[in-house]
Amino acid sequence: MIVISGFSGAGKGTLMKRLLSDYDEFALSVSMTSRQMREGEVDGREYFFVSKEEFETAIKEGKLLEHAEYCGNYYGTPKEYVEKKLKEGKNVILEIEVQGAMQIRKKFPEALLLYVTPPSIAELERRLKARGTETDEVIKRRLTQARTEVDYVDDYDYLVINDNLDECVKEMYGIICASSFEIKRQNALIKDLQEELSKLKF
Amino acid sequence: MIVISGFSGAGKGTLMKRLLSDYDEFALSVSMTSRQMREGEVDGREYFFVSKEEFETAIKEGKLLEHAEYCGNYYGTPKEYVEKKLKEGKNVILEIEVQGAMQIRKKFPEALLLYVTPPSIAELERRLKARGTETDEVIKRRLTQARTEVDYVDDYDYLVINDNLDECVKEMYGIICASSFEIKRQNALIKDLQEELSKLKF
Repeated sequence: MIVISGFSGAGKGTLMKRLLSDYDEFALSVSMTSRQMREGEVDGREYFFVSKEEFETAIKEGKLLEHAEYCGNYYGTPKEYVEKKLKEGKNVILEIEVQGAMQIRKKFPEALLLYVTPPSIAELERRLKARGTETDEVIKRRLTQARTEVDYVDDYDYLVINDNLDECVKEMYGIICASSFEIKRQNALIKDLQEELSKLKF
Repeated sequence: MIVISGFSGAGKGTLMKRLLSDYDEFALSVSMTSRQMREGEVDGREYFFVSKEEFETAIKEGKLLEHAEYCGNYYGTPKEYVEKKLKEGKNVILEIEVQGAMQIRKKFPEALLLYVTPPSIAELERRLKARGTETDEVIKRRLTQARTEVDYVDDYDYLVINDNLDECVKEMYGIICASSFEIKRQNALIKDLQEELSKLKF
């Protein structure tokens, strides 16, 4: 299970699309939300859209791996889809906010947590403005959010700089491969070696 | 600074040679020892050979990054050579035992510690026997040593399985690249982002 978070404007969406198209072994988790569906969105593609009541029932019934409230709406990760894809041998990517990421960290200590940032905040601001679709008010809100989020970055495993897209995709893939050799993911092998050694008769 | 340790018979020597020949950015640290020079060995290539007294002086004068006693002889890493190569922009590889590795961990928390193992202890035993040059006594001693060492593996960053040499070299290189994105090695960038964000006037 791979969690990807990052400042709004860091380019997570594009990165994720490239990871999924360049490599075969990934599946993207689709979140559930209680917010209104927007024009152009498709239920089950951008999100699974449900009512506030349905979302609260899902929480109560333990059907979510993590959830958070944001601007008065619920967002969460349905357990069933993730478990299905993991069983199929896929690495499941969760693109979620820091609150949700911390819940995943607690429940699944072996999950890999990546944070994506532009090379600097000046560059983040430039990218948000370059979109041309965001009001000054929205840009301000996103930067204020970044100021809160930055204190959680320490709790992630890796920090990736999205400067050049091609390089960043390769780096992320490299990190995902390398992370399987981290000591905390090698407990089974270490235990096997210890057992074999303890059985030697001298 | 990259520390590579591993069971005697794991194939560290061959791995190291391949890392140095396949990639440009590495330099191998040459250890200092107080043991006798063997036939075919060259001072400054396999080891820097010194007397026991000279070694003890080097310890007192703080000229070693780490040192350990093994079978009545001293082994250690001269500081000067490592610092010179680091200044040249090289990644310096230290092939040292677990005791020395733990000293490096304490002094240089940002050092990368890799442990190399064959896929199983049965395979380790097979490889030691296949060399044809080791007496049963020596093989027994090495396996006994492995039994002590295995409890330190948890203190390393990554555990690499040397099953297929080509794959293992690539994996190790991938790990070394990916490790630079680990949160603990990104403190400078995180601090920069925090400072930039704290200066925003809203």
